[in-house]
Amino acid sequence: MLILNIGDGKGKTTASIGQIIRSLGHGFKVCLIQLFKNNNFYGEQNILLKLENLDFFSFVKKHPYYLRGISSEELANLCDSAMRKLRELTIVDSKKYDLIVLDEFNVALRDKLINENEFVALIEKLSWESNVVVTGRGSPQALIDMADLVTEMKEIKHPYKNGVRAQKGIEY
Amino acid sequence: MLILNIGDGKGKTTASIGQIIRSLGHGFKVCLIQLFKNNNFYGEQNILLKLENLDFFSFVKKHPYYLRGISSEELANLCDSAMRKLRELTIVDSKKYDLIVLDEFNVALRDKLINENEFVALIEKLSWESNVVVTGRGSPQALIDMADLVTEMKEIKHPYKNGVRAQKGIEY
Repeated sequence: MLILNIGDGKGKTTASIGQIIRSLGHGFKVCLIQLFKNNNFYGEQNILLKLENLDFFSFVKKHPYYLRGISSEELANLCDSAMRKLRELTIVDSKKYDLIVLDEFNVALRDKLINENEFVALIEKLSWESNVVVTGRGSPQALIDMADLVTEMKEIKHPYKNGVRAQKGIEY
Repeated sequence: MLILNIGDGKGKTTASIGQIIRSLGHGFKVCLIQLFKNNNFYGEQNILLKLENLDFFSFVKKHPYYLRGISSEELANLCDSAMRKLRELTIVDSKKYDLIVLDEFNVALRDKLINENEFVALIEKLSWESNVVVTGRGSPQALIDMADLVTEMKEIKHPYKNGVRAQKGIEY
């Protein structure tokens, strides 16, 4: 099954973290592959690292915004480490996990840092044998067409708009 | 701060579970009060019960759908156990928790099982001193008006519509 958490609102990553907790609670094996997120910044990382039955991989540990000094070719090379992991999953470990969460991959797709056709082909294979969650703001139409469950997190009201800064424990 | 996860899509509860994990990861104290959910059915309950710094209370452990044999007066009495806990929080423990999650309370409000005016007044007080998350399909306008952050989880595509049944580890 392929699940997409898309949209401009909050809750795309937190819902996938909740999904991981739910799956682990049933004794499932879970793999989380994260892009663009600093270690030790997001609170959930501290808890997730301690949980059994969860393999947690994090690649390119800064948001593309903070990597603007780097050429997009170099950035694509960095993202290829995550793609190598994905290729490995489809070949070696495709049945090892009951749930595979790919956090922020839609951002890499949007910025053309990973090849859309290859990504879609890998996801098609993985989601046939496991449950796959892909999160991130934009999502290619090919992925939406293929998905079983798509939820748009829609921002109705956000405190940033009133000048409130991102809060520890809430936004990160 | 008051946060609402509303809408007809998936991710309202899972996002609040993710939020709990994020907050706990920063060493925050968290309180989760849940309505209408069976123990040992939702996978996340097995994990949450083991986590430090989280107090987890569950009231009325069946969905109203399965309680149709019970008069709405009796059902409201059952829900009052949750309201008593909320009143206690505002009086005794209001500064004890950094995050308070009220799961499915919007359903109780929709079915008029808890008093909206009292609930809104309690939330106003609690969200002044702590971060409060309320989840559930419908939400009274008074709560939306008061909230700092409102996200609508919008269903774009759902496998139920293709006849797929709820899946363990995904939907529960």
